[in-house]
Amino acid sequence: MSKKKKSARPKPRIPRGFRDIWSNDIAARSRMIERICDVYRRYGFLPLETPALEYVDALGKHLPESDTPSGGIFALRDDDEQWIALRYDLTAPLARVVAQYGQELPRPFRRFQVGPVWRMEKPGPGRFREFYQCDFDSVAATSPAADAEVCAVLAECLEALGIPAGDYVVRVNNRKVLNGVLDVIGIAADDEDAGGIQRLRVLRAIDKLDRLEEDGVRLLLGTGRKDESGDFTVGAGLSSEQIDIVMGYVGAGGADRAGVCRSLRELAGGSEDGLAGIRELEIIGELLDVMGLDERKVIFDPSVVRGLDYYTGPVFEAELTFNITDEKGNQRSVGSVAGGGRYDDLIKRFTGQAVPATGASIGVDRLLAALAMRGLQSSAPVGPVVVTVMETERLGDYQQMVQELRAAGIVAELYLGKGGYGATKKQMKYADQRSAPVVVIAGGDEFAAGEVTLKDMRKGAELAEEITDREEWRKGQPAQVSVPRVELVAKVREILQAHSTEAQ
Amino acid sequence: MSKKKKSARPKPRIPRGFRDIWSNDIAARSRMIERICDVYRRYGFLPLETPALEYVDALGKHLPESDTPSGGIFALRDDDEQWIALRYDLTAPLARVVAQYGQELPRPFRRFQVGPVWRMEKPGPGRFREFYQCDFDSVAATSPAADAEVCAVLAECLEALGIPAGDYVVRVNNRKVLNGVLDVIGIAADDEDAGGIQRLRVLRAIDKLDRLEEDGVRLLLGTGRKDESGDFTVGAGLSSEQIDIVMGYVGAGGADRAGVCRSLRELAGGSEDGLAGIRELEIIGELLDVMGLDERKVIFDPSVVRGLDYYTGPVFEAELTFNITDEKGNQRSVGSVAGGGRYDDLIKRFTGQAVPATGASIGVDRLLAALAMRGLQSSAPVGPVVVTVMETERLGDYQQMVQELRAAGIVAELYLGKGGYGATKKQMKYADQRSAPVVVIAGGDEFAAGEVTLKDMRKGAELAEEITDREEWRKGQPAQVSVPRVELVAKVREILQAHSTEAQ
Repeated sequence: MSKKKKSARPKPRIPRGFRDIWSNDIAARSRMIERICDVYRRYGFLPLETPALEYVDALGKHLPESDTPSGGIFALRDDDEQWIALRYDLTAPLARVVAQYGQELPRPFRRFQVGPVWRMEKPGPGRFREFYQCDFDSVAATSPAADAEVCAVLAECLEALGIPAGDYVVRVNNRKVLNGVLDVIGIAADDEDAGGIQRLRVLRAIDKLDRLEEDGVRLLLGTGRKDESGDFTVGAGLSSEQIDIVMGYVGAGGADRAGVCRSLRELAGGSEDGLAGIRELEIIGELLDVMGLDERKVIFDPSVVRGLDYYTGPVFEAELTFNITDEKGNQRSVGSVAGGGRYDDLIKRFTGQAVPATGASIGVDRLLAALAMRGLQSSAPVGPVVVTVMETERLGDYQQMVQELRAAGIVAELYLGKGGYGATKKQMKYADQRSAPVVVIAGGDEFAAGEVTLKDMRKGAELAEEITDREEWRKGQPAQVSVPRVELVAKVREILQAHSTEAQ
Repeated sequence: MSKKKKSARPKPRIPRGFRDIWSNDIAARSRMIERICDVYRRYGFLPLETPALEYVDALGKHLPESDTPSGGIFALRDDDEQWIALRYDLTAPLARVVAQYGQELPRPFRRFQVGPVWRMEKPGPGRFREFYQCDFDSVAATSPAADAEVCAVLAECLEALGIPAGDYVVRVNNRKVLNGVLDVIGIAADDEDAGGIQRLRVLRAIDKLDRLEEDGVRLLLGTGRKDESGDFTVGAGLSSEQIDIVMGYVGAGGADRAGVCRSLRELAGGSEDGLAGIRELEIIGELLDVMGLDERKVIFDPSVVRGLDYYTGPVFEAELTFNITDEKGNQRSVGSVAGGGRYDDLIKRFTGQAVPATGASIGVDRLLAALAMRGLQSSAPVGPVVVTVMETERLGDYQQMVQELRAAGIVAELYLGKGGYGATKKQMKYADQRSAPVVVIAGGDEFAAGEVTLKDMRKGAELAEEITDREEWRKGQPAQVSVPRVELVAKVREILQAHSTEAQ
């Protein structure tokens, strides 16, 4: 038996659920975020940046009666022994900011924030422990116009990303209306403990409509449901008459916005809360009309509840309506790419005072994946022009070429590894890996003749596909051309222009 | 005595050493980063993004013979019990990436990375525990052209930020030359333990030249030095002849680059290592000449050592040469705003193989602070046009105005708080806090007359400064104008254009 010796060399690896992101993906994400933020700015939202680390109690992630962190977050002790954690969303830090700076802030306070959040949850395909959020919120905004605006921002962002009306839809509902329905059928309100749990079970049951369809939801609203694995979920305990009313409510969408409001008045008009919610939806509908957001873009859909129980009024969900073909060739829907709602109690946690706020978050990573599969991404990347090094003693001459190219606005680089004639193949492979459009070659012959050789990498790749006789290919080198040294920039530009014309 | 009861409400606050960043600062930083990255891209560097969290052993921050984290980092246990930590720089993750992906990467591998890093160090004024780094590196780049390019990138970035030649300087040195000097005076090489410590003490002594001046450095090179507080620092134990030679080396700058190289040949030409380092400097000098980087921009300065002991060849430091006036009205120098060097052993830690790499990091936060104090920042921010709400039942009409303004490309927003005539003052205060250039007001009178009232906030502010008689001011309201409703957009645009003309 050999004694196990601890290796002195660490293994290069990253924690599970994390990833490295490469240049093409960074560029695509940056472009997307820039377009989204342009819309946010146009609507008057200002950027805010909060620290990655916050106190766990400020995040609302401490266990009751102590400051010990609850699960799901990356938490540690600061050097003063207090518990801190990486933020798991951008809403909790916003609430902390509003409570902390209070009256120093303009009210309404309208900010957007873009940045990573961290969750210690089970990772999976497409599910990471570090991902970007792109939030916009209006705090201390009582007006239903703030809610209508959330819909407008979501629609405009998606269109700014090249998704036309018809390929997306923003669904709107109002928590108050569901509460009204539950009032009407006699399920006690949230502040009574038992009723609170029952209402939460109803919410969760409706939230599963997509996955379980009507029959499954009916079971969850009633006595409960056993899934395929045999696990049993306790039901909300509603009678079959109550279930019929709830399912009638859930199915009240489909008509135009005014029609949905009329149906809701029949279902929940008997409750003060319900009526207030319907009135809000009606005002939102009027404002959407004014803003030219018709029913192809924004619909009222009572089946939208959104899982988070902190929403207190209108809730929003933006969905892509087209199917994509995934890696395995299967057609599947993309589903929700953005969501949000009105929440009045997040800031109350700090101050004791309810502050009405509304906003939404766009899921950049999911949108990127969907658009990439739809082919709405830009074409292949173009790398730098690579100037190779043949005569290692003439670095200055090669550097001069790079300098001239860069001065002409062409992205160019000198080969910075160990060059020389013996490294020709290595340098060509490098240029290929870098997606170089043109390679500049100058050896003793070229210097003597006052010339440079330019290799058109795109033409070379096309010809290599056509020509099967390798020898013939080698002899001809039809993708290479020698030009006078003084014409370097002009000729490189000519080849680049030919490439971009072909690409159109 | 009252019994202390634990409050159920958390205090809104952030951990010490962290900060919230507001819109103007975010905008200034984004502009700066964008300009810097443009230069990086033009030189052929590609972006890379690595996770915020890495394994502590992969960061090289584990205690010897265990994976327990050493100090200075924010570390925690992952849910598989392994130690992970927030990255403290962007170089350690780069080394991990190169070791992990190996031959899949193009070589040289040239990447830039921008992002926050975290250090659990003592916070202070301008010293935060979370700050941005802006790195570029060429890995597997043996050519001195890669080092010359680091100087070019630093110079070009600073000029892209509006800092002209003469207001900055890039200082270059080479660790090998200092090693050569130490060879010549008989101080043993790094790989012998005692000599290693002695060489490190020499490095550290030279690094303090700025603060302690020549006499202090001489003490540290010799028997040691007691500071004002009485603390004693052990010296490197050099003889006075040895100290003279080292100080001669340190003072060998000041001449032109070729002149510095000649002096260095006299001092360290007798050492193989020293000669290799001087030859590298000579090649770098030739390439700088080719790139048009004269001695106003890049100088050779043997006093530059840079604290980090992982540098193995050329080291770089960019410095702003002008003084700034700080908050207390004192003149002070800005000092180093960027630095880097060649390091060959960072990747060896993982693979056992030395991989030559060179690069630098630009300190965005320090640069921002310096440029803000120099007045190289853009002027005051301009907020959105604010449409106020007087008739709360006419939200649609107000929303329509906002919509028209936005459609014309004007950043505009509806007041989203509780509006109405009673909230006029509150709405004006909000517009003021938001730096609104124009406020749109429409009450019953305006609607009846088919008009809107526009308040020119900048003119209003100017007049308010001039007019001391408040009553006269109130009566006249000379900064307000009523226009037909259909002229809303045209008239707002007119006022905005007048503002931007004044600003020039």
